[in-house]
Formats: sequence, structure tokens, C-alpha cells
Amino acid sequence: MASPQYRLVYWPGIPGRGEHIRLVFEETSTPYTDTATTSDGLDRVLAYVQGNVPDDNINPPPLAPPILQHLADPNNDTNVTTISQTSNILLYLATHLPPGSIAPDPKTDPNALFYLNSLALTALDGLSNEPHDCHHPIASGLYYEDQKPESLRKADNYVRVRLPKFLGYFERVLGSGASGGGKWLYGGKFSFADLVLFQCLDGVKFMFPKAVSKYEREGTYAKVFALYQAVSERPKITEYLKSSRRQKYSDGIYRYYEELDIEP
Amino acid sequence: MASPQYRLVYWPGIPGRGEHIRLVFEETSTPYTDTATTSDGLDRVLAYVQGNVPDDNINPPPLAPPILQHLADPNNDTNVTTISQTSNILLYLATHLPPGSIAPDPKTDPNALFYLNSLALTALDGLSNEPHDCHHPIASGLYYEDQKPESLRKADNYVRVRLPKFLGYFERVLGSGASGGGKWLYGGKFSFADLVLFQCLDGVKFMFPKAVSKYEREGTYAKVFALYQAVSERPKITEYLKSSRRQKYSDGIYRYYEELDIEP
Repeated sequence: MASPQYRLVYWPGIPGRGEHIRLVFEETSTPYTDTATTSDGLDRVLAYVQGNVPDDNINPPPLAPPILQHLADPNNDTNVTTISQTSNILLYLATHLPPGSIAPDPKTDPNALFYLNSLALTALDGLSNEPHDCHHPIASGLYYEDQKPESLRKADNYVRVRLPKFLGYFERVLGSGASGGGKWLYGGKFSFADLVLFQCLDGVKFMFPKAVSKYEREGTYAKVFALYQAVSERPKITEYLKSSRRQKYSDGIYRYYEELDIEP
Repeated sequence: MASPQYRLVYWPGIPGRGEHIRLVFEETSTPYTDTATTSDGLDRVLAYVQGNVPDDNINPPPLAPPILQHLADPNNDTNVTTISQTSNILLYLATHLPPGSIAPDPKTDPNALFYLNSLALTALDGLSNEPHDCHHPIASGLYYEDQKPESLRKADNYVRVRLPKFLGYFERVLGSGASGGGKWLYGGKFSFADLVLFQCLDGVKFMFPKAVSKYEREGTYAKVFALYQAVSERPKITEYLKSSRRQKYSDGIYRYYEELDIEP
């Protein structure tokens, strides 16, 4: 059996931004290797982060994980496309996996990828980057313990103002004609943007359970929560979420701090 | 003469994220309208931001500007593609403007767009979003005056740690074989990623002149500053920067506050 053509390079031990890529591979049954599960995983991530990966004269060096390596020939390490940035990797996979599996075929809907990319970027902005900054508002290089009062102020604003803004936005997208019925974000069909929204909401639920459970109870964002449920019930996703490959949240983007778990 | 096919919807009065799109139009002599210069500009932006633009059943509603409208027929308002998110608009333009004008032709270099997208996203992360958060670390909905001590802490970390990290990263990209000689970021040819890096650095220079001038003097990031100079000397860009269409920095992403202008 050939080795997988796709390799994910991401910090072991946290779902993090790598999780969006994993969900795509799992949903589409695409074989991949993952530094989260290899013994040299951390070293391979650090080599990139520290700039110690030799220049291959083909791929611009990435700054940070997630990093995707795509081998033209799984048995030949010298012909590899290496790209980074979460939304960029998703876009790359959407154009390389079978058309229709995570995005409409560009031949029949040439704008779809741009719509999906925009939805994914917006979910990552408001439901991944901003939650991260709620425990690191001053500097990602300092400890949470060094920025606790600032974190509390930011988290308070986040659960009261920002989170409903983004939930309301996606509810509006699901209520628009472009969503094609309101089950999925675009065109009446499941796509990678739905996976991104699912994963972001899953992380926010872990980090701010009181706020999310209140907003879910109130019913204002019913379509968003229904989408979350529908993604979790896709057979491949259900299976993955129960597997040992699904890592637990810990000290990554989504963290549980009791003092930040504010009831809005 | 036909009306322009492209319409930029962005906050009037600041260069902001819209500026990356303007630079592409200016560099390629692509006609466009701009809410920065129309009398109803602010109203049109607010209609989107407040969710008051009627559902067209085709385009998912955007959350925030910059928003690009692309008219299939300049004289017919009913066939319009509407997309948002800065990097997404740049990618859309790269696939719709003449091949080679702001990105290599995908037919000869199918990976180029993904490389350029990743470079643009990284510049926007570290040299646009992070500077913005230096004056709004707690909440974008609060005034700077309500988050001054936190801003000072974040700006201090930014100029000492984050700014050199990102300058160093782009210096490394320019020193890699993939840059094709180190004048431009990728493949030895000018691209929209160079415009993004130019505009980001221009904003950071405005906001943190002491830090940028120190890093420029030290010579560690010589290729980055040479790229900045080379972009500014492109004839169309030089002409644009001198024109009244180039808006001044004020209360947008890049702001000058003396107390944040820290010498690292």
C-alpha cells in the first residue's frame, strides 16, 4: 500500500487550526499522515517554526503550522508542494479532492470557492482568532497568567458583543437564498465551510459553555446550531469524533478558564 | 464609455483594508468605482454592515467591508458577484484580471495562487491585524481611550517581538529560492502579494515610525525594505500615491499615537 500523499504538519496535543484540515480528510476518507500521531511530530513542527527546514527552491518557506505537504508521488519526497495558512490549505484541498466532496465543482459554479473561502475566513476570524485572543489579548508569547485582567475584559466583551454578532451573521447566511434552504451555508450542499463553522463552534462551546448554552436555549441562532448538529451526525465525522485521533482541547486556541466562562 | 465592472465598497476616509484592493486596480489600470469617493459611499457601507442589503438569492451576505462587486454587464445591476474578505477579493481579482498582471498564469504555475495567498494572509495577520489590535486589544467596539494601558502593553510587545518576527519571515521568503532572486516575494515576478506587503509596511511605518526606522537602519531586513521601495517606484503606483485618490491614514487600522511610538 502506498504512503499517503497528504501530510499535515501541526502541533501535537491540541486540535487547534490543524483540526479544520483533519475534518476535511476524515469526511472525505482521504489518507493522510499527521505530526500529531508520529513520534517525530514535535520536532518536525519546530523545524518549520524555527526556520530550520532547508530551502527547497520551490516552495516559499511557511511561517507557522498548519502546514500541508502534498506529494506528487507518495514514494518520492523530492516533489512536494508545501503550503500554509488554514483557509489557504482548505482552498487547496477543495481544488484537489474530488469535485463535489467539499465544494461545488468550479466548472458548474465558478464563484463557489470564493463564497466558501469568505465564509471560512469569517468563521476563523470571529470564532477562532478572537477566542484565542480572549486568553492572549496582550501577546501570544506571554503566559495567560501574565495577562489575566486584560483577558477577563476581552472575554466579557466577546461573549456579550462579538459572539452574538458572529452567530447572528451565520444565521443570516443560513437564512439567505444563497444558502439554498438553510441546512448548509451555501448552495444547499455540504462544504468545507460547514466543517469550519462546526469546528469553530465546537471550540467556542468548550471555552464559553455558559454563553453558548444560553444562546442555544434562546433559539435566536437555531439554524447555526442545527448545522452544528448536522455536521456532527455525518457518518465519517461521528466516527472520527469518537476515535482516538480526535484530540482533546487543552492549552491551544480554545481553553477552559472558569473565570472567563461568563454568563452573558 | 461603459461604467466600470468593478465596485469597491469600503469605509470612506481611511485607506484601511480596502487599500490592498485599490492598489491592485491602480497597478493594473483597471477601472473601478469606490465608495470612498461617491456621495452615498458611507450609506452603502452601512447598509452592508447593518445587514440591510436585500437578499439577492445568489451571493451569501458579506459581514463587513472590503466588499467587491463584479458586474457581468456594467449596465445591468442584476447580475453581480459580491464577495468579501480582503485576501479572498485579491484571489478573485488574480483569477479575473489578465494572467501575469498580478499573479503567474495558473496554466503554467498552478500552485502560484496558493503561495501568494499564503504570503498575503501572513502579511495581513502580522502587519495589519496585529497593529490594529495594538490600539484595540480589548474590543474593537470600545474607544482607544477605554483601553490605553492595555494598548501600551501590546504595542510594546509588538514592536519588540512581533514586528521583527514578521520582517524576519519576509526577509527569509525573499532569500529563498522560491522568490527567484529576492526582488519580489515569489517566482522572480511582481505579484499582488508584493502589493500587500508594501501596503502593510507603509501602514506600520506610519504607526510605529521609530521602530520601523530603527529596523531599516540596522539592515537586517534589507530585502524587505528594498521591495517596499521597488513597489513604490512602479509607475502606476507612484502616480497613485501622489494622487488625491490615496487617502491619508487617520482613525483606521494604522493610527499614530505618540505614546505607542516606541523605540525598541
